[in-house]
Amino acid sequence: MSFSISELQKLHDFACNLARRAGEYLRGDQSRRRQAQTLATREKLNSVDLVTAADEGVEKLIRDAIFAEYPSHAFIGEESYSAGEEKRFLLKDGPTWIVDPIDGTVNMVHMFPMTAISIGFCIASIPTVGVVFAPFLGGHGTLYSAINHPEGGAWMSEYGITGPITNLPIISPPPPLPKDAPKGCLFFGEWGKDRRDSPQSNLTKKSTNFVNMATEIGGRGGKGGMVHGIRSLGSSTMDMVYVASGQGDIMFEAGCWEWDVCGAMAILLQTGGIVVDSNPPLGISDTEPIPMANLGGRRYLAIRACSTDEDGKLPRTQQEALVREVWKRTERLNYERPM
Amino acid sequence: MSFSISELQKLHDFACNLARRAGEYLRGDQSRRRQAQTLATREKLNSVDLVTAADEGVEKLIRDAIFAEYPSHAFIGEESYSAGEEKRFLLKDGPTWIVDPIDGTVNMVHMFPMTAISIGFCIASIPTVGVVFAPFLGGHGTLYSAINHPEGGAWMSEYGITGPITNLPIISPPPPLPKDAPKGCLFFGEWGKDRRDSPQSNLTKKSTNFVNMATEIGGRGGKGGMVHGIRSLGSSTMDMVYVASGQGDIMFEAGCWEWDVCGAMAILLQTGGIVVDSNPPLGISDTEPIPMANLGGRRYLAIRACSTDEDGKLPRTQQEALVREVWKRTERLNYERPM
Repeated sequence: MSFSISELQKLHDFACNLARRAGEYLRGDQSRRRQAQTLATREKLNSVDLVTAADEGVEKLIRDAIFAEYPSHAFIGEESYSAGEEKRFLLKDGPTWIVDPIDGTVNMVHMFPMTAISIGFCIASIPTVGVVFAPFLGGHGTLYSAINHPEGGAWMSEYGITGPITNLPIISPPPPLPKDAPKGCLFFGEWGKDRRDSPQSNLTKKSTNFVNMATEIGGRGGKGGMVHGIRSLGSSTMDMVYVASGQGDIMFEAGCWEWDVCGAMAILLQTGGIVVDSNPPLGISDTEPIPMANLGGRRYLAIRACSTDEDGKLPRTQQEALVREVWKRTERLNYERPM
Repeated sequence: MSFSISELQKLHDFACNLARRAGEYLRGDQSRRRQAQTLATREKLNSVDLVTAADEGVEKLIRDAIFAEYPSHAFIGEESYSAGEEKRFLLKDGPTWIVDPIDGTVNMVHMFPMTAISIGFCIASIPTVGVVFAPFLGGHGTLYSAINHPEGGAWMSEYGITGPITNLPIISPPPPLPKDAPKGCLFFGEWGKDRRDSPQSNLTKKSTNFVNMATEIGGRGGKGGMVHGIRSLGSSTMDMVYVASGQGDIMFEAGCWEWDVCGAMAILLQTGGIVVDSNPPLGISDTEPIPMANLGGRRYLAIRACSTDEDGKLPRTQQEALVREVWKRTERLNYERPM
């Protein structure tokens, strides 16, 4: 099945409007909370894995609208997935919507504005339309979107539905990656929900990874990366969208799911970024091409778009070199897909 | 010297307008960068301690405007301080402006929007007027401000100069702190610029603190805090302003300076939050009152405003109890004031 650019444009505009409607819903919900001073939450995995009535309400709003407009398309949503029995990767080759009604639920509970509605649309398992709307970021919210297609584009809108838009990446053409990257890069990663205290836990390994990336060059037995900064926003959707837009360089995250990244990934791919597995494939050599991440693989290492550098190194060459430098400095994380 | 509320209101409005003008300057600068694709930076301490021409340009803009309007007031600015010889704490009792032209310079270089202009005004060493403007956060920027005075107030503006404003704290009255705090809290902290690899370095201690705060209750030899999340934004001004507004619970940061926190501290104090030393005073007992932070002390632990809880525990009692819980879980950091 193939879609023309004008069909994709229609899908894109539909998804943007839908994300803005979902954002209105959340803003209404938050403004009621400002009066009521409480928000009912339910725990999923543990006390930091929360679901609110708003998560479920927004997912229903989005699912109902998609079914009404595109009854033949498949739908994967975080809340229906979490409530169901089937934990395998459900993506098929047909047109499929992959939706996170609220990424950053903990932030929303605390009214910290790094919360996003993520709507992705895949064809043949490739993120093709992506919309990420952060309804609390600025008075009008901030909307990122893209059509991943040779005649497509990627955009940011910060002034509401009728306001001006910014083409992405935010600097175009994007600058080359820093010569000694990861030194000089802005690195995004999350602490996550696995909080077990043990030497092999994901929490322990993630903290090792962060310290390695932050430490001066030469430190940590050669693993010091001297990145410009480590940022943890509490939303892997927002982490990836900042890398997609060129407002950051590296996103390293594991434990999240396809609905957390599908929308942002469409934007990243369209701007010229790459996403690979955050664990290096076993036995990969230093020279062979690096395969792209499996959308359902739960481990993502994203690198922003860049231009050919002054030595003539192509973007993909710089990006893959940076991936190998990050892999050298990070421990393998224990997130797998339920089979 | 005392100021009437109407004089403070005038100072507040002047500082808000000045912060917006400085924001316009930065937005102009960024839009030129989007074309030129480069930003000249200079290193201060090391490759992550950057200063741009914009830092110095904005500081001059703010300093000149203040000298023109209030020639008798003192002025402390980050860039003039860094360029000077005198490293002692310069604050005197008279009316003094304390300004960070750009907090989050690394973010600005990468176009990540957590960058703020901070303008604080002290009387008798007390932050009395505070303005924090994040010019890239939303299309119109986001402005936080307060007059710390019984007849004052605290506000957030996200829609530009003529748009609606939100009273702070964002939920009013603010909810009590979580019963088992720090469990359930949103915690803000930064990795900082000290990247040395040694067991006693600030980097090592900060990472220990973050892991302790994140780990499940009972883990880490009883130090596990099971916070809802750890957020690192790359701007201590923004960290503190989110706690001031009630969009976060705890800010733990050391190594920054009075200009990074003075503006946000005025907002925090007005909303009912507290700021203490992030290192516990030596020998302090479990029951004596906790002294407030020294504005020039370079170590800050801020707790958001809260209301009396259902057991009748007063706000200050809850806040001090939470401070002690954070102190138990964190190592003393090595930041001192040059004498």
